[in-house]
Amino acid sequence: MKKHNSRCVFINKMGIGDNYPVRVESMLKVPLNRRDAILSEVKKLKEVGCELLRVAFPSLDLKQDLDYLVKEATIPIMADIHFDGNLALAAMESGCPSIRINPGNMKNKKALREIISMAKDKGVVIRIGVNGGSLASSFYEKAQGDEALALVLAVKEQINLMQDEDFEDLIISAKATSVKATLKANTLLRQLYPYPLHIGITEAGPGLHGIVKSSVGIALMLSQGIGDTIRVSLTASSVEEVKVGQEILQALGIRRFRADLISCPTCGRKRVDVNMLVEAIEPALGKLPKDWTVAVMGCEVNGPKEASGADFGIAGTQSGVVFFQKGKVIGRCSVEEIASYVKSIIEGF
Amino acid sequence: MKKHNSRCVFINKMGIGDNYPVRVESMLKVPLNRRDAILSEVKKLKEVGCELLRVAFPSLDLKQDLDYLVKEATIPIMADIHFDGNLALAAMESGCPSIRINPGNMKNKKALREIISMAKDKGVVIRIGVNGGSLASSFYEKAQGDEALALVLAVKEQINLMQDEDFEDLIISAKATSVKATLKANTLLRQLYPYPLHIGITEAGPGLHGIVKSSVGIALMLSQGIGDTIRVSLTASSVEEVKVGQEILQALGIRRFRADLISCPTCGRKRVDVNMLVEAIEPALGKLPKDWTVAVMGCEVNGPKEASGADFGIAGTQSGVVFFQKGKVIGRCSVEEIASYVKSIIEGF
Repeated sequence: MKKHNSRCVFINKMGIGDNYPVRVESMLKVPLNRRDAILSEVKKLKEVGCELLRVAFPSLDLKQDLDYLVKEATIPIMADIHFDGNLALAAMESGCPSIRINPGNMKNKKALREIISMAKDKGVVIRIGVNGGSLASSFYEKAQGDEALALVLAVKEQINLMQDEDFEDLIISAKATSVKATLKANTLLRQLYPYPLHIGITEAGPGLHGIVKSSVGIALMLSQGIGDTIRVSLTASSVEEVKVGQEILQALGIRRFRADLISCPTCGRKRVDVNMLVEAIEPALGKLPKDWTVAVMGCEVNGPKEASGADFGIAGTQSGVVFFQKGKVIGRCSVEEIASYVKSIIEGF
Repeated sequence: MKKHNSRCVFINKMGIGDNYPVRVESMLKVPLNRRDAILSEVKKLKEVGCELLRVAFPSLDLKQDLDYLVKEATIPIMADIHFDGNLALAAMESGCPSIRINPGNMKNKKALREIISMAKDKGVVIRIGVNGGSLASSFYEKAQGDEALALVLAVKEQINLMQDEDFEDLIISAKATSVKATLKANTLLRQLYPYPLHIGITEAGPGLHGIVKSSVGIALMLSQGIGDTIRVSLTASSVEEVKVGQEILQALGIRRFRADLISCPTCGRKRVDVNMLVEAIEPALGKLPKDWTVAVMGCEVNGPKEASGADFGIAGTQSGVVFFQKGKVIGRCSVEEIASYVKSIIEGF
C-alpha cells in the first residue's frame, strides 16, 4: 500500500503529497459569520487532529469573517470558491494559504488567470476540485456518458490552463457519489498527473451509510497507492468526518493515531460483559502509547491468546477477569470489580 | 469486482459460492438457553435481511435449546463448535444444516472423521473457521511468524483431512484482527482452493472503529473478487452487523438492498437543514424501489444537478425547497412545510 509518488505542495509549511503522511481534512459546517460557533468547531477539530480545514466562502459580505478566521484558526484554511473568481482573490487577500476552485462553475478564463497570478505571488496552493454533481454536461457528452472520464476531462481542461501559466502548486480532486466512478477517475488521474490527489466520496450521506460508503471508497483508492489527503463527506459533524478518516488510515496500516482496540463481538459463549469492559477502556485509549494493541475478550476461545499477545489485554474466564501486559499476567479481579480495576491499572501506566 | 468462481454449497437450499449473491451473516449475541430473547433477535435479524445465523453451542446441556432454535428459526443456523467434537455431532442431530469447527482447538482426529461421516449422511455443510486468536503456535513457527501464512497452513491441514474423506461441502474462513494479514491469507486461500470463502475481520471492536475497520478489510477482499459470504464482527448488535455488511456490498455495487441515499455533508453554504430532510426521508427509503437513487442537497452548488439526476430528489434554494422525480420538478414548498410535504409525497409513490 505504498503511496504513488507525487509532487508535493506546502500549505502553511505542511507538506501534502510525495512521502508526506496522508492528511486528514474536514470542512466547517457552520457559516463564516457565526464566529464563536466556528472557533469552537475549529478547537474541537484541532483536538481531534484535523490537518486542513475547508470553509465555504460564498459571498464578499463575509470577507471580514474570513479575515478573522484565518487570523484565529489553529488549522490551515482552504477557502472553498464557486461561481465567482473575485471570491478567490478576496480569500487570498484574507491570507488563506489555499483555495479550492471548481472548474465546473467558473467560466471566466480571465478571472482564472488573475487568480493564478495572485496565487503565485502569495504562495497559495490551488485545489482544482471537480464534482460529479456540478460538472458541465459538455464533459459528459465528450465522455459519452462515462462519469469517471467526464471528471477527468474536466480536471484536464483546468490543468491545461494552469500549466499554460506555469502554475504547479496544485492539488487535484475528482469526486462522484459512486465508489466505482470515483475509483476509476482517480486511477486515471494518478496515471496522468504528478499532482497530489485529494480523495473522497462526495455526499456519502448520513450515519452508517455514509461511514461505510466512505470507508469502502477511500480504502480502495488508498490500497492502490492513490490519495495524498482525504476528506470523509458525511451528513454528520466535522469531528466525526476526521475520526472516520483517521480510522480508515489506521485500518490500512498507513498511519497510526491511537492504540488499536481489538474486542470480540461477543456471542453466547461470553463470560463477562465485553461492552462494559470496552466502555471502561475506550476513553483511556488516547492515554496509552499509540503503537499499542489493546485486547478486550469475552471468553476462552480466542481470549487469552489475543489478550496475552496484545500490549495490554483483558480476557474473561470462568472465575472473573485476567489482565495481561505484554504477555504477562498483571492482575486478576472479579466481575464486580472490573470497572474500578481497569481504571486503576490504566492510571498506573 | 466480479467474484472469483468457486464451488457452491447449499445450506437449507440457499446457495453460497459460485454465482450466488454474496451472503450476509451474523451471530447470535445471547446464550442459547434464553429462548425468548433469541427468538426476538432472530425475528429482527430476519426482518433486516440476515441470511445465515451462527450460534455458539458450547455445551451439551444446551442441546434441547438448540433443537428448539433449529425448529423455530426462520434463518438457516450454523452451530459454532470449539474444543469438543461431540458438540458437532449433537448439533447435527439437532438438525443444524451447517456447523463451524475451529481446527485450532479440536485435536481429536477420530472425532473429526465421525463428524465428517455424519455431515455426509445429513448433507451438512462444514465451515472450517481459522482465527488468528486461537491458532496453535506450531503454525506460527512453520510460517516463521507470518500470521497470514500460519492461517493458511492451519486451513490446509484441515482441508487435507476433509479431502482424505472425500468431503467437499466446505466453506473456509481465515480471519485475523489485522486487515493486511486477513487480506493476504484470503488471497492465498482463493488461489489454493475452490471452496466458498467466508470473510471478515475478526474482533473489529466497537463503534466507529469496528465499522470502519470491517468496511475497509471486507471491501478490499470483495473488490478483488474474494468472498462468498461475509460477517461483520462488531461489539454491537447483530442487526447492526447485518446492516454494515449490506452497506459494504451496496457501496461496491455488488448487491442492492435499498434505495441509495445521496446527501450533501452541508457547509456554510447550505440553504436548508439537510439533517432534517434526511431524517424525514430515511425511514421511508425502504418503501421506495431499491434501484432508486434519492438525493438530499442543501444548496445550489451540486444540489439541483444531483437532485434532478436522481430518481427522487430534494434541493434547497433561496426561496425554499424543490422536489424532483426522475429529472422533473414535481413540487416546491417552503422550509416550514418540508416535513409534511416529504411525508405526503412519499406516501403518494
